[in-house]
Amino acid sequence: MSSTAGKVIRCRAAVAWEAGKPLVMEEVEVAPPQTMEVRIKIAFTSLCHTDVYFWEAKGQTPVFPRIFGHEAGGIVESVGEGVTDLAPGDHVLPVFTGECKECAHCKSEESNMCNLLRINTDRGVMLYDGKSRFSINGKPIYHFVGTSTFSEYTVVHVGCIAKINPLAPLDKVCVLSCGITTGLGATLNVAKPPKGSTVSVFGLGAVGLAAAEGARISGASRIIGVDLINSRFEEAKKFGVTEFVNPKEHSKPVQEVLAEMTDGGVDRSIECTGNVDAMISAFECVHDGWGVAVIVGVPHKDAVFKTHPINLLNERTLKGTFFGNYKPRSDLPSVVEMYMNKELELEKFITHTVPFSEINKAFEYMLSAEGIRCIIRMDE
Amino acid sequence: MSSTAGKVIRCRAAVAWEAGKPLVMEEVEVAPPQTMEVRIKIAFTSLCHTDVYFWEAKGQTPVFPRIFGHEAGGIVESVGEGVTDLAPGDHVLPVFTGECKECAHCKSEESNMCNLLRINTDRGVMLYDGKSRFSINGKPIYHFVGTSTFSEYTVVHVGCIAKINPLAPLDKVCVLSCGITTGLGATLNVAKPPKGSTVSVFGLGAVGLAAAEGARISGASRIIGVDLINSRFEEAKKFGVTEFVNPKEHSKPVQEVLAEMTDGGVDRSIECTGNVDAMISAFECVHDGWGVAVIVGVPHKDAVFKTHPINLLNERTLKGTFFGNYKPRSDLPSVVEMYMNKELELEKFITHTVPFSEINKAFEYMLSAEGIRCIIRMDE
Ligand SMILES: NC(=O)c1ccc[n+]([C@@H]2O[C@H](COP(=O)([O-])OP(=O)(O)OC[C@H]3O[C@@H](n4cnc5c(N)ncnc54)[C@H](O)[C@@H]3O)[C@@H](O)[C@H]2O)c1
Ligand SMILES: NC(=O)c1ccc[n+]([C@@H]2O[C@H](COP(=O)([O-])OP(=O)(O)OC[C@H]3O[C@@H](n4cnc5c(N)ncnc54)[C@H](O)[C@@H]3O)[C@@H](O)[C@H]2O)c1
Ligand SMILES: [Zn+2]
Ligand SMILES: [Zn+2]
Ligand SMILES: [Zn+2]
Ligand SMILES: [Zn+2]
Repeated sequence: MSSTAGKVIRCRAAVAWEAGKPLVMEEVEVAPPQTMEVRIKIAFTSLCHTDVYFWEAKGQTPVFPRIFGHEAGGIVESVGEGVTDLAPGDHVLPVFTGECKECAHCKSEESNMCNLLRINTDRGVMLYDGKSRFSINGKPIYHFVGTSTFSEYTVVHVGCIAKINPLAPLDKVCVLSCGITTGLGATLNVAKPPKGSTVSVFGLGAVGLAAAEGARISGASRIIGVDLINSRFEEAKKFGVTEFVNPKEHSKPVQEVLAEMTDGGVDRSIECTGNVDAMISAFECVHDGWGVAVIVGVPHKDAVFKTHPINLLNERTLKGTFFGNYKPRSDLPSVVEMYMNKELELEKFITHTVPFSEINKAFEYMLSAEGIRCIIRMDE
Repeated sequence: MSSTAGKVIRCRAAVAWEAGKPLVMEEVEVAPPQTMEVRIKIAFTSLCHTDVYFWEAKGQTPVFPRIFGHEAGGIVESVGEGVTDLAPGDHVLPVFTGECKECAHCKSEESNMCNLLRINTDRGVMLYDGKSRFSINGKPIYHFVGTSTFSEYTVVHVGCIAKINPLAPLDKVCVLSCGITTGLGATLNVAKPPKGSTVSVFGLGAVGLAAAEGARISGASRIIGVDLINSRFEEAKKFGVTEFVNPKEHSKPVQEVLAEMTDGGVDRSIECTGNVDAMISAFECVHDGWGVAVIVGVPHKDAVFKTHPINLLNERTLKGTFFGNYKPRSDLPSVVEMYMNKELELEKFITHTVPFSEINKAFEYMLSAEGIRCIIRMDE
């Protein structure tokens, strides 16, 4: 039992007081975990686009003051009532979506969209009592997607925590909490390219590069990267991308360009852009008879996916995925093991690191589209 | 060797001289089979909507004079050069689409869309020499989808012929050449409902009822039939349909009606209407997390399938199928065995029979939407 268990912890957190304004390092009070909650000491966290979108809050519901952060690795400090499968000292990854293990989705082998703990970007409080565990002078600071990892300590629902191999380096595997796992699972769990197949990946951000990494692990013989930015290709080569297509450089639709390159279409296609035109192209570029397209990107709320039904009747499959179809608690530990066994390469995703005190630099890197992932070291 | 081998056969055929005009019983000359062709004595044939559509030729390319018919059972009379796996006396089902066993589709385990022998509704001649095998006084009569079974003898490419169990009654299994197999395979091969699941079937024509039969065979616990015509439900009960929804009787979209009936959506949905709005509803009514929708109906050429991409991201799958994903030569014999083993019930699809001389009655039954399948007895 740690000496802090059951007590309020005072620690540093990077607080977003207002939309789009630099985070401010503050001393916050972190309340003890309540029923089915766990308090985690964060060791490393990284920054993802979703943090930036909700911090900018253009189009999203503004919930401020708020502590962002949802890709992280840490160690359990203490647990609340009813928590039996985690104990202080356990190494864990908090996740923005959860697994209650009791709802229809958790009981289904196919779904990871838990009814109770499915991502909720608007809620800034804990499920148990509708309150925040963070405060400054008694004034609540809101949570973000149930994780809020830009704090030395955070409180998370036990259903949103994956217990992982304690030998895994947290400064590497922390990136597995969100986008990398999403892209990887989109390929390995959903598209499932057979060995030797041709795979196209639309969008070569972190998610798309992870999808390409999945294709490399699957033994795809051709991985065709599609992006509007030519500079993305150099980086993408490290992820096994063998060819590059920039739709802007062609007069015909990119699905036709890909069909010509591949004698009728790719075997598998993974869309990681969030752009609905890319989704349509990613679907229409798969080969008839057996092609499978997987949609990963989160679209604009008014976007409409359109295609001629004959594209379906010609035996194409269209699927979407959320968090790469991984169940956070049941499946994430095995993704960590893939890294430990050197099947999955994580180092190449990590292009920057900064001390926690300089967290705003991580935002600058992302806003200027520099690099892929920036690791934030919490103890500095 | 039959005494007719290598010779022209004179026999009866029902010729469509003009679009929409009653077929005329004529004596035709049927040339011997050429390289990779087989001449078949048709024993029983049935009438399918596709015959009627191309006979009406509203919107379709008119090809006349023509011999229609593509659901049939018969016996091999003689074979052309290069045919090694069929011999006179074999019991066979001719099929409107083929399997060359050599192209990328035939070699793929997933596809049945053979490059060489895929359905072609506009071609009225044989592949080998671009000529018809049917003539009257030297004037060619055109083929239909490579089968033309409304003739006592017909010539078919070997790749479009399934060799079946000689004990199977041809007056029953002849209906397996097209729509019934399509609907059955859409469920068994593509939707694959787990035992105990809830399945919705849009459109309760022959194809939809066969899809329902597939759901019954799979052990679905609820089969919800959706059709605009209430009278379809009585018939559908025989096929295991447990509930009926007529979209016209509800003010809200039918996908919402189904979601309410099933606590969030059906597990599997099969569209057998050809109407694009039904396709969209069939997709949107499946449960998030695991739902699979299968499109079977052939849409209008200008139809557009539209949905919000979030419906995909919530882990729904959308697929299309052609001929129920069965490979005609490799797989159809096993469907015949399902009937022989009493797993599959075919009798209930057969609502009428007529002698060949009264074939126009079969057209009348179909045009007045009476019954499901009418068997035409060729020897009468
Ligand atoms: N489904 C999930 O569970 C999940 C999880 C995390 C992220 N995402 C989504 O995945 C998507 C990708 O995330 P990311 O962090 O890699 O984003 P990113 O912005 O780093 O990368 C997106 C890439 O797509 C490219 N792109 C944009 N429009 C394009 C088009 N029309 N054609 C080709 N390329 C185009 C951009 O140039 C960019 O390189 C986002 O929509 C994100 O919201 C989904
Ligand atoms: N993919 C293939 O390989 C293949 C093979 C054969 C037939 N088909 C297609 O399958 C479809 C069905 O064939 P069939 O012979 O059973 O046709 P059918 O006309 O006998 O049955 C169609 C049924 O759908 C119903 N329907 C029409 N619009 C509807 C709507 N909006 N909502 C609900 N129900 C609606 C009709 O009332 C009718 O009962 C056709 O489009 C046909 O072209 C496809
Ligand atoms: Zn759950
Ligand atoms: Zn993220
Ligand atoms: Zn073939
Ligand atoms: Zn047919």
